[in-house]
Amino acid sequence: MKGKVFLVGAGPGDPELLTLKAARLLKSADAVLHDDLVGAGILQLAAPHAQLHSVGKRCGKKNIRQKEINFLMVNLAASGLRVVRLKGGDPLVFGRVAEEITALREADIEFEIVPGITAALGAAATAQIPLTDRRAAHAVVFLAGQHAAEPNPTNWQALVSLGATVVIYMPGYRYGEISGKLQAAGLAGDTPCAVISRATTSEEQVFSTSLEDLQNAPQLPAPILLVIGEVSRQAGCHVTLQGDLLGQSLNSIHSVVDEEQRA
Amino acid sequence: MKGKVFLVGAGPGDPELLTLKAARLLKSADAVLHDDLVGAGILQLAAPHAQLHSVGKRCGKKNIRQKEINFLMVNLAASGLRVVRLKGGDPLVFGRVAEEITALREADIEFEIVPGITAALGAAATAQIPLTDRRAAHAVVFLAGQHAAEPNPTNWQALVSLGATVVIYMPGYRYGEISGKLQAAGLAGDTPCAVISRATTSEEQVFSTSLEDLQNAPQLPAPILLVIGEVSRQAGCHVTLQGDLLGQSLNSIHSVVDEEQRA
Repeated sequence: MKGKVFLVGAGPGDPELLTLKAARLLKSADAVLHDDLVGAGILQLAAPHAQLHSVGKRCGKKNIRQKEINFLMVNLAASGLRVVRLKGGDPLVFGRVAEEITALREADIEFEIVPGITAALGAAATAQIPLTDRRAAHAVVFLAGQHAAEPNPTNWQALVSLGATVVIYMPGYRYGEISGKLQAAGLAGDTPCAVISRATTSEEQVFSTSLEDLQNAPQLPAPILLVIGEVSRQAGCHVTLQGDLLGQSLNSIHSVVDEEQRA
Repeated sequence: MKGKVFLVGAGPGDPELLTLKAARLLKSADAVLHDDLVGAGILQLAAPHAQLHSVGKRCGKKNIRQKEINFLMVNLAASGLRVVRLKGGDPLVFGRVAEEITALREADIEFEIVPGITAALGAAATAQIPLTDRRAAHAVVFLAGQHAAEPNPTNWQALVSLGATVVIYMPGYRYGEISGKLQAAGLAGDTPCAVISRATTSEEQVFSTSLEDLQNAPQLPAPILLVIGEVSRQAGCHVTLQGDLLGQSLNSIHSVVDEEQRA
């Protein structure tokens, strides 16, 4: 009898942000194939007998690795095992899961997708930023950092014209470039932004700034998300910050408080 | 001693898609204030001694109700209780939580935001649609149906120019209007769409169609999400459908399969 594959989101970092279903599936899995971003606290939920396979994609050999992952996943399931394919965040948002779904369909392996808390929602919760707000943003866009590097001006214009909150996943440290493109496309320099690092973990940090000052933001540890838009003005002031950044950051926090009082 | 408020996402419907943290907080809450969309299966997790308050916003008196919710929430916490404010999906995505955060800050009540699986992620998992795909969509937009009703042509143009997957929350049954505006803004009539009803529940249904045929889609039971974009072509063919719609729906499923074979 063939097994089954569960494509499961592990959430943004905090093991408690796993869903009840993901936790149950992990406990009963015969094999777990996980990405680098999935923390040890989550993998500990797997049964002692379960095979754990780290299949994180390192730079360079991405295509080869994807084929290897597909091959391993399909063969484990074809041999009758219950396989959990565990991805950081949600599998369907920047999870590169489309190729895995295609491989499973081609091999006629039963599968099920179990959503997870995508990084943007974890980051917004950490920073206390409503991603939509009927007063300020009727829509939110999730964009990949690599896309943000593309030169196509139409898309930047469109992004700004949309008037949505923009969340950039994996922006790297190209803050100046991103800020420049958004301003060139017409977004006001005083638009508030937040840089959110390691959201929902014990190391989470939030740095609040403006689009024109974004290039001076500290290079906080990855994974990072950028939230750009009026809603960022509502970011909380509760955030912990690294010691050497504290002076700079308190300034930015004070400016957020001032803005709120003016509003 | 003052209590604390937890603004918690209850996820898209399936009680198993609650996070471990949300379940723990529900079990230890003294009071739970919940929206209409939060199902009985989830509320059962609350302790027997907990006060349950249904504070769903019915049409008409939204502003008054919001003030009442804020008042109740602040006062319960001020009297020393642990309060869980439970919202369908994620509290920061179309959760109208901004006003509640403001009220909590003004009353100096400690609070914490606990993210949940937003409806788009639940719907995408049900329909097996990758919301992003490095071959087809580098970004995804979540848009509220009421915004989709706005006449502003710039936004429709911007939305189409962005080339992102579009997820419309609460579209109502204005399929023809939405389809017409997107086509007028330049989106091709053969762009695939999916109408997803009651995702992640036992009553979930997916109807696959194209933008030009969207107006003929069945009025499936709310809550509904619309997913529009090339990625919808990857929707799974496993979906259950209502008996009287089966003929029509099988046609649409077959057309999806044909498309895949042609691709």
